[in-house]
Amino acid sequence: MQIATPYLLFLGDAPDDLAAKTARGILHWRSRNCLGQIRLAGCNADLGLPDMTIPEAAAAGVKSMVIGVANAGGVIPDHWTDTIVEALEAGLDVASGLHHRLADNPAIADAARRAGRSLFDVRHPRTNLTTGTGAKRPGKRLLTVGTDCSVGKMFASLAIEAEMQARGLKADFRATGQTGILIAGSGISVDAVVADFISGAAEMISPANDPDHWDIVEGQGSLFHPSFAGVSLGLLHGSQPDALVLCHEPTRRHMRGLPHAPLPDLGDCLAANLQAARLTNPAVRAIGVAVNTSRLDDTAARDCLARIADDLGLPATDPVRYGAGPLVDALEG
Amino acid sequence: MQIATPYLLFLGDAPDDLAAKTARGILHWRSRNCLGQIRLAGCNADLGLPDMTIPEAAAAGVKSMVIGVANAGGVIPDHWTDTIVEALEAGLDVASGLHHRLADNPAIADAARRAGRSLFDVRHPRTNLTTGTGAKRPGKRLLTVGTDCSVGKMFASLAIEAEMQARGLKADFRATGQTGILIAGSGISVDAVVADFISGAAEMISPANDPDHWDIVEGQGSLFHPSFAGVSLGLLHGSQPDALVLCHEPTRRHMRGLPHAPLPDLGDCLAANLQAARLTNPAVRAIGVAVNTSRLDDTAARDCLARIADDLGLPATDPVRYGAGPLVDALEG
Repeated sequence: MQIATPYLLFLGDAPDDLAAKTARGILHWRSRNCLGQIRLAGCNADLGLPDMTIPEAAAAGVKSMVIGVANAGGVIPDHWTDTIVEALEAGLDVASGLHHRLADNPAIADAARRAGRSLFDVRHPRTNLTTGTGAKRPGKRLLTVGTDCSVGKMFASLAIEAEMQARGLKADFRATGQTGILIAGSGISVDAVVADFISGAAEMISPANDPDHWDIVEGQGSLFHPSFAGVSLGLLHGSQPDALVLCHEPTRRHMRGLPHAPLPDLGDCLAANLQAARLTNPAVRAIGVAVNTSRLDDTAARDCLARIADDLGLPATDPVRYGAGPLVDALEG
Repeated sequence: MQIATPYLLFLGDAPDDLAAKTARGILHWRSRNCLGQIRLAGCNADLGLPDMTIPEAAAAGVKSMVIGVANAGGVIPDHWTDTIVEALEAGLDVASGLHHRLADNPAIADAARRAGRSLFDVRHPRTNLTTGTGAKRPGKRLLTVGTDCSVGKMFASLAIEAEMQARGLKADFRATGQTGILIAGSGISVDAVVADFISGAAEMISPANDPDHWDIVEGQGSLFHPSFAGVSLGLLHGSQPDALVLCHEPTRRHMRGLPHAPLPDLGDCLAANLQAARLTNPAVRAIGVAVNTSRLDDTAARDCLARIADDLGLPATDPVRYGAGPLVDALEG
């Protein structure tokens, strides 16, 4: 599965910029793939890209329209259908990370069939999966692991990929969640696969590669999140990481969605991840900590990073705010 | 979901007794639920139950026909269809643990609809699941965990349930795999749920209960199996066990299906399970070891149990061969 580029980003009737954060993520990390945006009546989001009609996008060489807007139920509202059908009829593929599938909408499915175009419902894995084996394969892998869900693992992974590529290193971001897949154009939503296939999915997205090539694998959940730790462990075993980066959000007061569940100690969390990772890669090492300091001012952020670096004896940075340099330095060291 | 009892056990054209081991398991652990068997031409298995036609079974009060025979592809061969349709038309529900679904066979699905009967494809969860919360709930839980897959976790769990019930303790086996579900009449195949819902499924099958009630939860896989550890961890977190029983098969030379993957040390395996279990139940304790000694003679079996008990400082028994008494003693102690 590879979503063809370049993209037209569909913002629909996004009530505000936050609703279009998927589109913003794609633009931020893959601006070279984004030719334009398309907005419906009532849209209050603006990515600053050229507004295009479907015919204009097709004429400009766009290959896929990507739904870059989210809503509460993850539904595809009726008033989006005409535009999606028009895109298919104009020869574009359409990709979505919403819960409800494009392929389950009869008008959209029918238009795709008639036009011979592809629908990508990236939240719903369609690949035929096999169970993982844990067998060692060539190539190097870095996995971002977290103290909790939604602490910046995807951003950290993409920042590390960007820094490595800027240094001329061979590195590819490997997506494991819907936004990451839309950014990378490929990947598997590992939390949506059948439980038996978690590690197999992780093996599939980071296959054998050159000895000096790094897969930068997007982590999911946390070994310490009572709802999702199984996903995190299967991903850890399947990606058989050579390097771990621990991701953390320092203002989090409890595990996401669970007010009764405390955050783990960072050292304990890292130790548990290293211990579990050794099952499929005894040589795994922790190279640093990626801290999402977006809720702290600059002074507090720098204090926080210094304290974590001191506590763990590892480089700590906010890879979005201050760059991923210290993490890649540690990887090369 | 509750499969209605009593059962008629369908043996089909099982080439030998081993092919009917699902039926034998149901009969062994729930003989009170088994009124008869039905065999097709070419069947070489015999459970010693009365042979019944479908009309005889219906007249005897049978409520469900259970497919008790397995085959290589987990398929429902065409020459079984007539008997299954006849059972539905006679007012029986039909349950199967095969990979291929009864509900996907048009003749069978159609007959069920016409007769208003239920089809149970227990390998395929149909319950609407929610994500786990890890919140503490009343009642006590014991979980069997393993050094590997297929080391006797289901048998150990059922033997512990039987011993506890014989002592007048409140205990219910909670099934997490297809054979266990057919035995118990309910449960969820946790390795077949979507990965996000592993711990939620475990919470659903062992809900809040009386403070002195024990759920005996059937474990799956192993934290040390590179293919399936995610399932094991989610099950561990969701069942929030008060007590763990470690299950082991002493002649296993490598992890099941993976010649390159060594078995874990028993002490390391138990320690890792206890550590992970503390996330949702800090009071968890190990109460003993259940060893499947079926490949050892009596002397070797007793030596093996003595050595393991000595190494781990915990009672060790083969719960099928020598009874689950020592484990339940430890639970009550």
